[in-house]
Amino acid sequence: MLRALGRRRQPCRAGSAVRRLVCSLILVAIVNASTQPNSSSSGADSNAGADQKVAFDALMDLVGEDLKRVNQAILDRMHSPIALIPQLAGHIIAAGGKRLRPLLTLGAAKLVGYEGERHIQLAACIEFLHTATLLHDDVVDESDKRRGRDTANAVWGNKPSVLVGDFLFARAFELMVEDGSLEVMGILARASAVISEGEIHQLLTANNIETTEADYLEVVGAKTAALFAAATRIGGVAADRPREELDALDAYGRNLGIAFQIADDFLDYSAREADLGKSIGDDFRDGKLTLPVIHAIAAANDEERAFWTRVLEEQAFSDPHGDADFTHAMTLLSKHGSLEATVRRAHDFAEAARRSLDMFPDSPVKTVLTEVVDFSVARAY
Amino acid sequence: MLRALGRRRQPCRAGSAVRRLVCSLILVAIVNASTQPNSSSSGADSNAGADQKVAFDALMDLVGEDLKRVNQAILDRMHSPIALIPQLAGHIIAAGGKRLRPLLTLGAAKLVGYEGERHIQLAACIEFLHTATLLHDDVVDESDKRRGRDTANAVWGNKPSVLVGDFLFARAFELMVEDGSLEVMGILARASAVISEGEIHQLLTANNIETTEADYLEVVGAKTAALFAAATRIGGVAADRPREELDALDAYGRNLGIAFQIADDFLDYSAREADLGKSIGDDFRDGKLTLPVIHAIAAANDEERAFWTRVLEEQAFSDPHGDADFTHAMTLLSKHGSLEATVRRAHDFAEAARRSLDMFPDSPVKTVLTEVVDFSVARAY
Repeated sequence: MLRALGRRRQPCRAGSAVRRLVCSLILVAIVNASTQPNSSSSGADSNAGADQKVAFDALMDLVGEDLKRVNQAILDRMHSPIALIPQLAGHIIAAGGKRLRPLLTLGAAKLVGYEGERHIQLAACIEFLHTATLLHDDVVDESDKRRGRDTANAVWGNKPSVLVGDFLFARAFELMVEDGSLEVMGILARASAVISEGEIHQLLTANNIETTEADYLEVVGAKTAALFAAATRIGGVAADRPREELDALDAYGRNLGIAFQIADDFLDYSAREADLGKSIGDDFRDGKLTLPVIHAIAAANDEERAFWTRVLEEQAFSDPHGDADFTHAMTLLSKHGSLEATVRRAHDFAEAARRSLDMFPDSPVKTVLTEVVDFSVARAY
Repeated sequence: MLRALGRRRQPCRAGSAVRRLVCSLILVAIVNASTQPNSSSSGADSNAGADQKVAFDALMDLVGEDLKRVNQAILDRMHSPIALIPQLAGHIIAAGGKRLRPLLTLGAAKLVGYEGERHIQLAACIEFLHTATLLHDDVVDESDKRRGRDTANAVWGNKPSVLVGDFLFARAFELMVEDGSLEVMGILARASAVISEGEIHQLLTANNIETTEADYLEVVGAKTAALFAAATRIGGVAADRPREELDALDAYGRNLGIAFQIADDFLDYSAREADLGKSIGDDFRDGKLTLPVIHAIAAANDEERAFWTRVLEEQAFSDPHGDADFTHAMTLLSKHGSLEATVRRAHDFAEAARRSLDMFPDSPVKTVLTEVVDFSVARAY
């Protein structure tokens, strides 16, 4: 998920104050993702540029200080006497990522007026769970690159990647136990099981052109949206908010997560990315059944169906890298309006995410959370 | 660990009543490891033979009913709408294993007079943690066989094995959360992190002939003994016993775990196993630094050291399967008395495990727990 956001990062351009704020949110997160705990402020200035300075300061007023503390907690708790663990974990945690999921915990906590300290450790915990998943994903996908950097499995091999993933998962549970809320632990234990189920379900839909949109949404809801939903919900649990607010935060995270993943899957077929020289078509070449092709397959005639069977199920490409087949796939997506349909679905979920915030009074953090939704799907234009 | 116990299973022969009891303990566990919940009693009779019948009945009075319920809990909680999950998890859980770790939880709870229900779910939780570790171990070790059966990774590939391991780990935490004890959760979260650290530490000692006995004991204490210690300790926590009893149970499990692993590593160099036609020398061929070779390397002259460097570090064998080199290695172990020294160390830890039970009054379950220790190291004769 974040992989795609990262590898296809759009430059932040000056625009409305709100747009600048959102760009800054992302920039702050990137800057704070550094493993150098004291580099964030100066780094932010030099990277963000002067015209983001005002919005940057505004955002720091909101969650920037908290995010710094989250990053410090991550660094502190990556520690192990086995030096390879912080090395490898640091590699992937430093590799960027926008700390989007921990930011959601911080944002949700702030939205409901939380004043305590627990959200810092819980946000770090969310990032550990996410990082553990990424490490195992890269092993499972045999990925060499993540966000333009070599993956941990490419550098150290699969073995330490599997085991450090396990370590981070265990460490996440240690952080939860320290927090001490059975409700939070229940949410995160359940989310962890659901994420694994979603990943396994995804394996089973790969290379299967019978996969439906309903299957796809089930996979995405589990492998991606479950952690988004947990991240926002626990922000509310920390603040001891009533059930309806927790459900609203959950719905916000869940719908945002689905919109985010749909946009991500769209981008793997985005012609504009090709203009930018980024790699596209990875999902196609891996035979992954994502929404764009699911839509096109549903509308396919017999000849087209035979094409999808050959390329996605049999992975029998007509040239070594499947370039000609990918071009033909793009033609079919265009013929059936599949990319537009994909964007529409992303917008449906984005709208649902926004609506979930209706019950909360307007505030700067509500504006930012709304803009995170906009940004997540705006990537898909 | 259990891998070796399983693949090198010794036939249980009639002997003293106590010996029969221990043999039966193992048999009961094997039989109950079946995924057919109702097959245990009849299976036990047919497998164990008449002369174990009395001891079997005695043991069933102790923990047999509990173990059946643990197996039922395992079956119930393996469930997932993704059918591959119970299939794959069932494959490894059914593959045998003696349920030694959950038995330790049941035994510890009984030793301290626990009368409640929590130990059933906690024992299932321990087995899930163990199974998750086994699945990832087999991926990391690229193992094709476990206890004579194809490994899950050999049948389904690495990807589902990694992900189902994650699922079982998450499910274990769900079980803990349901149990609701922060103390238990802290123990198991910590043990999980330590196990991962031990596994990673072991990777780093592989192919490194500078590995010392202290390194080895650190690895074994983490990757194996931490779960044994947690399994016994939480049996006492469930019964709300005082700290000194918990520490004694912990020490019992920890020392038993170390003794068990040393015996296991001994068996990889056991000539008698060769007589039995079982595979030995896997650790040697993988370049794993276990106690027998660590002892021999410490006593090696220059020529021998060059040999160990060639075979363990460079893995440059003089014939395709390293058979001649393994034979030479066995000669060196014999020359330096390394196998005897290994057995002595196993006995040191076994003795420590037995002594840990001194504070508990004599009882049938204490006898069984003592005999588990004897059995664990007796494998190494």
